[in-house]
Amino acid sequence: MAGESSLELRSIVTSGAKLEMSLETVAVPEPKDDEVLIRVEAAPINPSDLGLLIGPADVSTLEVTGSGNNVKATMDIPEAMMGAMQARMDQSLPAGNEGAGIVVAAGANAQALIGETVGVAGGSMYSQFRCVAASNCLVMNEGTSAAEGASCFVNPLTALGMVETMKMENHSALVHTAAASNLGQMLVKICLADEVQLVNIVRKTEHVELLKSLGAVHVCNSSDPGFMTELIDALVATGATVAFDATGGGKLAGQILTAMEVAANKTAKEYSRYGSTTHKQVYIYGGLDRSPTTFNRAFGMAWGIGGWLLTPFIQKVGQDKFQELRQRVADEIKTTFASHYTREVSLAEALSADAIKAYAKQATGEKYLIMPHK
Amino acid sequence: MAGESSLELRSIVTSGAKLEMSLETVAVPEPKDDEVLIRVEAAPINPSDLGLLIGPADVSTLEVTGSGNNVKATMDIPEAMMGAMQARMDQSLPAGNEGAGIVVAAGANAQALIGETVGVAGGSMYSQFRCVAASNCLVMNEGTSAAEGASCFVNPLTALGMVETMKMENHSALVHTAAASNLGQMLVKICLADEVQLVNIVRKTEHVELLKSLGAVHVCNSSDPGFMTELIDALVATGATVAFDATGGGKLAGQILTAMEVAANKTAKEYSRYGSTTHKQVYIYGGLDRSPTTFNRAFGMAWGIGGWLLTPFIQKVGQDKFQELRQRVADEIKTTFASHYTREVSLAEALSADAIKAYAKQATGEKYLIMPHK
Repeated sequence: MAGESSLELRSIVTSGAKLEMSLETVAVPEPKDDEVLIRVEAAPINPSDLGLLIGPADVSTLEVTGSGNNVKATMDIPEAMMGAMQARMDQSLPAGNEGAGIVVAAGANAQALIGETVGVAGGSMYSQFRCVAASNCLVMNEGTSAAEGASCFVNPLTALGMVETMKMENHSALVHTAAASNLGQMLVKICLADEVQLVNIVRKTEHVELLKSLGAVHVCNSSDPGFMTELIDALVATGATVAFDATGGGKLAGQILTAMEVAANKTAKEYSRYGSTTHKQVYIYGGLDRSPTTFNRAFGMAWGIGGWLLTPFIQKVGQDKFQELRQRVADEIKTTFASHYTREVSLAEALSADAIKAYAKQATGEKYLIMPHK
Repeated sequence: MAGESSLELRSIVTSGAKLEMSLETVAVPEPKDDEVLIRVEAAPINPSDLGLLIGPADVSTLEVTGSGNNVKATMDIPEAMMGAMQARMDQSLPAGNEGAGIVVAAGANAQALIGETVGVAGGSMYSQFRCVAASNCLVMNEGTSAAEGASCFVNPLTALGMVETMKMENHSALVHTAAASNLGQMLVKICLADEVQLVNIVRKTEHVELLKSLGAVHVCNSSDPGFMTELIDALVATGATVAFDATGGGKLAGQILTAMEVAANKTAKEYSRYGSTTHKQVYIYGGLDRSPTTFNRAFGMAWGIGGWLLTPFIQKVGQDKFQELRQRVADEIKTTFASHYTREVSLAEALSADAIKAYAKQATGEKYLIMPHK
């Protein structure tokens, strides 16, 4: 491969308050002793990729110029958000948290991986070739394609991480919002298999039906007028005291805590002046709703809201557990952890105006897969 | 004492959406083997007492009828808040988290305490006589009056608990809001003595001066136009990554997290797409600002906001540490842990319209002490 070139997607914030996405050609790297070179065949665009790809840029100002591999997408960044951009200013950053491909070269200690289809959370996966540590690769089972393995990390391990976090923090059931997402569907299947009670919160009637068709027991629609009552009933039935919220903004996190408090007090024998002593926790792991988070603290004093991110979870859970979870993903990649894509695009097509507008929306059921060699 | 009667303050929520405060006469209880009977001489009205005393009642609707020990104060409770009141409905509840007095009788195993001045977080302290477990009493040193020892629990242990929580959760400096309060002044003195760096947030210029006169180094005034810059500078100087917020509502908690994130990124060497990896925590331990809490999550993913309450902290810290902290309070009750009161009132005077309106405001520097035998 030495001497060949690799195309990769880049995002840059300029001091002129612009965000630019473009393609760069770089030399194919040479794997070191413990590394492998992957020919990347497929890499999904996850919500967690958008922070780096698009950041706080205003998609309504999008302009796309050039064509083919010279395409360039430009957007304005609101002036108020520029302060938070200082650390990445004027740096051309590669993107793409995860993907899958074929190992086409390997260092001295990783020769056994040559020819294998592997999934990896390597960063910079919107590239034609990517060099990563062999130990980071999840080898797919015989018969798994790169497209099938492309989303083997972020969503599967986040879903598994929610269930593990629930157990580690002594909760016995959990709540999930934006529950009809790819990740949400995985979580429904995991919870059914592992006999963990799950309360799903969705925003549309068709999503209630989708999740029920997968076997979900508790599905509450936040657009229903009776949402709070439904949610309280589901919390009483399951005893869920931890929630994972993909929306982040608005009132939902506070509504969940309030419903948990009401559910806890329904079984309380005595008035407690500071509210129920049951600890109620909401972890915000996404920002589908960009509006401010707001809540009225009508849920006693035993509560927490916080950010939840996969990487610190993996550090906390330890290497053995992490390997066990990864192997489960490889073994169930066509069932529990199957992902669905609405579009497969080349690197250049990923920078078309239509594509950017579509994936920036993060609509449930809309998902793009980049095929760097298409 | 048997056969004598004791006057005590009660609060009740009626199904007619009224909150009533009145005085009840009860029989003086007889101490069991491990109990003591305290003649309560002084009990403060803390913000943490108001939840039970006044709850969500609307003070602007206050009506006071009767006189002397037959006084009754009545307020309306907004209909929307009645759901949260179910657990205390129609129960006449005694109030007063803490106070001090003289042990006037004791059970067989607690005779040694007779005649001692003790402080106790016994609940129901707005009473003339109170029976509590001897082990709950903090014996005051020779020369300490009941009035001096009345606030020996809630504020001192909360202030000490903040510093201990900071240490237990691996932060190295802390932030405190509403920092000119009695509690805030204690915290300034503790941090000076223990060489812990503290960032104080106040809302008035005179409070900046007050805290500086006590030796406080970092005092930021949230009413200043340059507040965020001041706060960021203080956070860079101290490295504080945990805050204790008495206000609860509004934007302050989010501003603190945002300033912590900016401070953390000022020293960051590389752009991190999910923000700084430093965990930033705000604990809300009061609700001086009753408006909704609102924040825009411009502080990465490593953050938490949660309730903080003294009782779970004491359970967590263990008996030995708790005793050590209590003894420090007794030893420093006239210095580090001295409280200042603006008014000393009898039980009946505590139910006057003027008094209720004054302490319901929870204004910094305004503090009432109930003297049940006045």
